Amino acid sequence: MNIRLWLTCWTLWFLPQLINAQVADNRLCVGTSNQIYSTLLKETRTVWVHLPAHSDPKQRYPVLYVLDGENHFGATVGMTQQMAGVWPEMIVVGITNTVRERDLTPARSTTDTHQPVVYSGQEDFLQFIGQELIPYIDSRFPTTSYRLLSGHSLGGLTVINALLYNTQLFNAYIALEPSLWWDNQQFLQAVEKKLATKTFTNTSLFMAVANPTLATGLDTVRALRDTTAKTMLYRSVTQFIKGLRRYPNNGLRWNSQFFPDERHGTIQLVGQYKALTTLFDYYPFRTSQFENHPELDMDSVLVAHYKTVSARLGYTVLPSEELVNNLGYTSMGLGQPQKAYAFFKRNVETYPKSANAYDSLGDYFVWQGEKIKAIAAFRHALSLQETADTRRKLDELLKK
Amino acid sequence: MNIRLWLTCWTLWFLPQLINAQVADNRLCVGTSNQIYSTLLKETRTVWVHLPAHSDPKQRYPVLYVLDGENHFGATVGMTQQMAGVWPEMIVVGITNTVRERDLTPARSTTDTHQPVVYSGQEDFLQFIGQELIPYIDSRFPTTSYRLLSGHSLGGLTVINALLYNTQLFNAYIALEPSLWWDNQQFLQAVEKKLATKTFTNTSLFMAVANPTLATGLDTVRALRDTTAKTMLYRSVTQFIKGLRRYPNNGLRWNSQFFPDERHGTIQLVGQYKALTTLFDYYPFRTSQFENHPELDMDSVLVAHYKTVSARLGYTVLPSEELVNNLGYTSMGLGQPQKAYAFFKRNVETYPKSANAYDSLGDYFVWQGEKIKAIAAFRHALSLQETADTRRKLDELLKK
Repeated sequence: MNIRLWLTCWTLWFLPQLINAQVADNRLCVGTSNQIYSTLLKETRTVWVHLPAHSDPKQRYPVLYVLDGENHFGATVGMTQQMAGVWPEMIVVGITNTVRERDLTPARSTTDTHQPVVYSGQEDFLQFIGQELIPYIDSRFPTTSYRLLSGHSLGGLTVINALLYNTQLFNAYIALEPSLWWDNQQFLQAVEKKLATKTFTNTSLFMAVANPTLATGLDTVRALRDTTAKTMLYRSVTQFIKGLRRYPNNGLRWNSQFFPDERHGTIQLVGQYKALTTLFDYYPFRTSQFENHPELDMDSVLVAHYKTVSARLGYTVLPSEELVNNLGYTSMGLGQPQKAYAFFKRNVETYPKSANAYDSLGDYFVWQGEKIKAIAAFRHALSLQETADTRRKLDELLKK
Repeated sequence: MNIRLWLTCWTLWFLPQLINAQVADNRLCVGTSNQIYSTLLKETRTVWVHLPAHSDPKQRYPVLYVLDGENHFGATVGMTQQMAGVWPEMIVVGITNTVRERDLTPARSTTDTHQPVVYSGQEDFLQFIGQELIPYIDSRFPTTSYRLLSGHSLGGLTVINALLYNTQLFNAYIALEPSLWWDNQQFLQAVEKKLATKTFTNTSLFMAVANPTLATGLDTVRALRDTTAKTMLYRSVTQFIKGLRRYPNNGLRWNSQFFPDERHGTIQLVGQYKALTTLFDYYPFRTSQFENHPELDMDSVLVAHYKTVSARLGYTVLPSEELVNNLGYTSMGLGQPQKAYAFFKRNVETYPKSANAYDSLGDYFVWQGEKIKAIAAFRHALSLQETADTRRKLDELLKK
């Protein structure tokens, strides 16, 4: 990181150091397509998997499972890369469809005998996820125990089913415009009864609701009074949210958000974004708090923060290289050289193969006027990875 | 598309038929990394290019150029894939950095002689984009003449420079939290003078403004009265927006949006999303209008819509395969078999290699009870591409 630019920028913000795509030959790739034969479903399933790029091979990640993978994988991967640091970095698993309307619809109604046979495979599909897919992913990728499930429309319906009947599978559930109208709301009625008796532990839900007015012309009050099919999704989701409010002591952490500018068919991207921002609202560590309150003790705030994060995720989380690096620069900005040095030193010790950690240490030594140490740090950074920025800084020092 | 599911869904929404990533071996790739030697900058530049997947090799696309490509390319590509149909499909070009603070800062101030030499290369950089990069992209990729430029922070500053001094380069400009504080607002003052005399033709600007309260603790009124560096970006952007309001007749189509939940360092994703949604608000064709107003003549509405779209983009745009397909199903839903047939027939004629076009035609024939024609259509679809959905529908017909 260039110190002069940083010092000029005034407002410190998190600049992801990670390259957005894993470069190999000249193609920019974001994941792999994987085949898994399901004994339960008696068919081969294709899952798309994104693994964050990282310099530390021991790093492990939460896993976000995305239904309708072929439609939502790319955008979801892109946003997890962009938001790395604000959200935890994640493995993204896109489950692609074979027979979508079979897998994403719940058990057949006993009252409606006209439903085609192809529907109603949701239970089998969730068994596949729990007994076959999750073990497959956990055995092949560096996962942690924290898992999320996200789905839109019929995928959202599947998410609600998993939340209430297969709660052990995931820690966080994202239901974007779930099709709770399904089966003339019979599934919804069953779900509401379940809400009355169920208790949750460390489980979160985010619901995204589109604006029915955009598609129907009816305002939201009229849409609730309407009795036609075109408002049934909105009415069903609203009824479910009322159900959630009725049982505030069941332990479920839930949020719903209404998106006035979005329709059922456009809400996926911004809904997913707001869901992950809300579900991980406790995650980001804001260095700006020290700029506004220089009296805060950085170390104790840091320890307390990661204690909370670890409790929420269910395993020990330590500050990332990027954050410690930022704290070093923040300390420099606050005129605290000893603290700054401690942060930069900690990073080169924890991540001895990181060129950026040595580059930042070099910046620190330049700032302190310790030319020989700065040259050594920049040289070490360049021995790990050649970058134009570090090279220029080294050349400038050598010229002086 | 499965007709029964569609008929059950009630709310018609746009389901992208495109797979989100171009699959080759088992890697999921979204673009290529390209090297271009710049005679003007005397260095090799790396640009990342995403080309939409499409069945029609003659298809051409607008181009979205993204500054700080290594940070914003992946998320931007993901959202253009997710929103295909709501926005036009786009080629995305991510310009990666060599010396960021050189390329993204404007000509050196005459009053500040202390600025390091490394700054102030923005003019050269924009010359490189106009004289070398755009011709390079246009010669190698299927582009149209419509171009957008997007940048954040110093990248946003570069976007504002291009808008006012290199307006011919792009049709639409996206400035996310532009660093208009640069050089003690001297660049801002020059820009404001320029706004007074400049006229624009078919040029659009979108500005995204973060909430200064989140980082500073000051509410927006106090932030405007503040005189410290930490509110200077917010104050500078607000001043520029006032400048835009002062000259309503200069022909510039502009919008600014304040994001209460976003900081300078988190606004990139949702800012880019809202920018593209706003800049292309005239683009999507909503089939729901016919459900609410069945008296509308579909063909004349369609013609008028694409006349507007073509005028805005500056070249002839025709309805996509997906839209015509949706209109076929919409006509079926409205009980208009002749119209439905016309749409499906049009698609198999325009896109004879599209399996989905034949699959939909098959759905139409099933709906009409024309079994032999339906079987022929499904068989033709399967000869183009094997899909489980079409195979199942064919098998069911053959069993009857």
